[in-house]
Amino acid sequence: MNGAEALVRTLAAGGVDVCFANPGTSEMHFVAALDRAPGIRCVLNLFEGGATAAADAYARMTGKPAATLLHLGTGLSNALANMHNARKAGTPMVNLVGEHAAAHQRLDCALQSDTLTLARPMSHWVRAVSTAAEIGPAAADALAAARARGGQIATLVLNADASWSDGAAPASIHPDVPLNRVPAERVRQAAAALRAGGALLLVGGQTLRAGPAEIAVAIARTCGVPLRAQSRDPRVERGAGRVAIERLPNATGPGVAALAGFRCVVSIGARPPVANFGHPGQPGQWLPDGCSFLELAGDGDDLVATLEALADEVGARPDPGLRAPLRRPALPTGPVMPEALGLALAALIPENAILIDETLTSGRTFFAATATAAPHDYLALTGGAIGWGIPAAAGAAIACPDRKVVALQADGSGLYTVQALWTHARENLDILTVVFANREYAILRNELKNVGITAPGRNAINMLTLDNPPIDWVHLARGFGVPAQRVETMEDFNKAFAAGVKARGPALIEVLLKPVVS
Amino acid sequence: MNGAEALVRTLAAGGVDVCFANPGTSEMHFVAALDRAPGIRCVLNLFEGGATAAADAYARMTGKPAATLLHLGTGLSNALANMHNARKAGTPMVNLVGEHAAAHQRLDCALQSDTLTLARPMSHWVRAVSTAAEIGPAAADALAAARARGGQIATLVLNADASWSDGAAPASIHPDVPLNRVPAERVRQAAAALRAGGALLLVGGQTLRAGPAEIAVAIARTCGVPLRAQSRDPRVERGAGRVAIERLPNATGPGVAALAGFRCVVSIGARPPVANFGHPGQPGQWLPDGCSFLELAGDGDDLVATLEALADEVGARPDPGLRAPLRRPALPTGPVMPEALGLALAALIPENAILIDETLTSGRTFFAATATAAPHDYLALTGGAIGWGIPAAAGAAIACPDRKVVALQADGSGLYTVQALWTHARENLDILTVVFANREYAILRNELKNVGITAPGRNAINMLTLDNPPIDWVHLARGFGVPAQRVETMEDFNKAFAAGVKARGPALIEVLLKPVVS
Repeated sequence: MNGAEALVRTLAAGGVDVCFANPGTSEMHFVAALDRAPGIRCVLNLFEGGATAAADAYARMTGKPAATLLHLGTGLSNALANMHNARKAGTPMVNLVGEHAAAHQRLDCALQSDTLTLARPMSHWVRAVSTAAEIGPAAADALAAARARGGQIATLVLNADASWSDGAAPASIHPDVPLNRVPAERVRQAAAALRAGGALLLVGGQTLRAGPAEIAVAIARTCGVPLRAQSRDPRVERGAGRVAIERLPNATGPGVAALAGFRCVVSIGARPPVANFGHPGQPGQWLPDGCSFLELAGDGDDLVATLEALADEVGARPDPGLRAPLRRPALPTGPVMPEALGLALAALIPENAILIDETLTSGRTFFAATATAAPHDYLALTGGAIGWGIPAAAGAAIACPDRKVVALQADGSGLYTVQALWTHARENLDILTVVFANREYAILRNELKNVGITAPGRNAINMLTLDNPPIDWVHLARGFGVPAQRVETMEDFNKAFAAGVKARGPALIEVLLKPVVS
Repeated sequence: MNGAEALVRTLAAGGVDVCFANPGTSEMHFVAALDRAPGIRCVLNLFEGGATAAADAYARMTGKPAATLLHLGTGLSNALANMHNARKAGTPMVNLVGEHAAAHQRLDCALQSDTLTLARPMSHWVRAVSTAAEIGPAAADALAAARARGGQIATLVLNADASWSDGAAPASIHPDVPLNRVPAERVRQAAAALRAGGALLLVGGQTLRAGPAEIAVAIARTCGVPLRAQSRDPRVERGAGRVAIERLPNATGPGVAALAGFRCVVSIGARPPVANFGHPGQPGQWLPDGCSFLELAGDGDDLVATLEALADEVGARPDPGLRAPLRRPALPTGPVMPEALGLALAALIPENAILIDETLTSGRTFFAATATAAPHDYLALTGGAIGWGIPAAAGAAIACPDRKVVALQADGSGLYTVQALWTHARENLDILTVVFANREYAILRNELKNVGITAPGRNAINMLTLDNPPIDWVHLARGFGVPAQRVETMEDFNKAFAAGVKARGPALIEVLLKPVVS
């Protein structure tokens, strides 16, 4: 058996059933092995960043890693930004990066680069494999690394001759290493801190699934403290029938205000709240002076067990009466405005939908507005590297073929990985993509203000605007085989969205947020 | 003066007049400084890989570096693949990468990553700048590094607080370090080797400009040896009125055959000929057994002075009679075939055009076919990282606004950085993009054969085909504001191409190479 087949068989035995691929020459043996050792669905992406974003969302929805297949150091380079987002989400992922055969690496051919160094910054675990015999055990180790500590990025760099040579065998899969149990003493300390007054309970990660979130709400009520979720989480189960947990704001002013007056923040699965960027004269760290950050459980800890232990300690019991009711707002009419769009989403998102949110400025009201919508999952951009939403929607749809995926997408960000629309069409995925087209990098206009520039000059304005010429998302979507339409009023949005969630298969709605300037 | 302004003023003083940018928050001070310290044209790219490809082609055409402006480690990640191509081309380039403010880097915010480690594999020179006072001298050093040794990739990682803080001043520009002069003794050795029989003269880089190429031809004729160019060069001046130098083949079989029987290859500016990939049972290194590779001049050497010295040594004098005549072939008719397209290009490319070639499989005949076309520059993909052509065309057009740019583009590769079409429209660049749509990764189909798979299975075929659904380049181009049409016969191609080169401004022709399967 050659190395490629041992790799495929080991991954399949370990439960990997999807590979998001953008292969090249050095990965052809792997591609061939997929047909000899079935069990893995191979999904083609037109750009490597699409593969890692899809694998990220797939794992967020299934709880298990997908593989990605990438071509050499340059293909890996294209995949790094969305590996970064997955790394920040704590997503399990196994990246398979083809490398030149060992003898060929010495020849400094055109496509030679330092693949291992490129892999390290965005990976928790990296290994180079140079022989066929190593490949099975390395695949098993990579899977174990991906599954460890709640989810990590594992990257295997595979010499082509290791893949094509015989003498390989599948390796047995390592048992999962259990998550850390937080010591009882720390749970008691946290309980004491929550009861002492001036505390906030801050949660993130697995605590935001439906069941654990109810426990978190119960703890906060029992202790009489406010409860918040960190501002951008990999996956939140929410909507009608689940408890609603308010998020910390994403911007510094509101973020600092939300934390003012607290003496202690007790965290279960949430990172210390900080600004996305440092700005002159603004705090990067949001906790008020003298406020301590008590991390009860974090990376690698069993967050749900910790919640349960804390609930026992404080005597908290979930109250089903606190679950959000279903409230479908009346459909807004008139001009397209962010608030109106939030209400329309709250009214129209279907039961059990998966919302992918890369809206940035245009969607700031959507999260709050959908707290009492039909039950759904909400997946956010965790690492800030834009160009995640469209391919992430593909990953979520492949993970959950029976659920509608609604991709809420800013236009500027969506253009980074717009090719992923083709994968929506190719795989006939049940995704409704909604592009909010303000035709500018609105977030940067705000940032110019933040750095003190209130009257930007010609060069600066040119770096912020996307309206000359306007980008026509209807044409782009059709070019990739996705039916599309543009709407400019709430009436048209409501109609298009309702039709889009009712139909199966990919579709795109371009929502024009302001009239064309040029 | 703040650091950003010192940076802009230093770069402008050093002759940098274009910045290909995809800025974010941490680069807003730089953007603002562009308006206070004019002299640099800032060109927006919708994706960072477009910025580095454009800077690559710009420098190939002007001989001087452009700047790129990239957002943090993740924006840099997106730019790496085309930095790789530029690195392999020996292109001068100054990358400006914004980084979080020093205090903010300690907070591990969402967009924190290891920017410096990401920068190193694709850069010749990297420096982190943490204070405003350092920024001017660092910019001068980066420019000097970019210009050194014929062209290098210099990457400056700039903390945001270094940009926004006062206390900076522009630095004076370092004088260029001259290229190495090859010792006379080595020239004599090379001359002896060329005269000894069984030698090949292999050239690359600056030797392929019109004047030096005539010297190379004269040397080869005087010594009675064959002359070849390396297979993929950054820039070749060729066509009618210039001498034609045949390239070494790109594939292993023909490459090995072309070198069979030689006892010595004397190189001026060419790398040792090797396969793009190692394959089982095929040679990676193409020189026959016992054949030596004598590098007379390489990286950092003055290639043109070396040619001149060698010509003196062997008594060679350029003969204007060897310049290629202008031969416009009759326009081919009938079905679209690669050979016919080559002839049509030879007949129709306008005088002084710049051809950007990322055709891969579909354009293998184009180079030979255009040897007697109107005089033109030919820019090839030097590093094999696909997704270069469309943004490279933008860079060439900005470098040479009075020349027609013709981008010859494979469909699969073009989709990696298709967003760059918008920059063609935005800047109203005089670019005719021709997409050769075979609707598959044809190169990988060949590679499957190379690894011994003659009857690929379903998974493998799915990784090679782009025809389900077909990608509609006419829609894609229109989506980005570029007028476009599709042609399916040579008659229509000839008409569309002739009209496209006559008109000014961006346009795209999709050439369908075979009927749609699905």
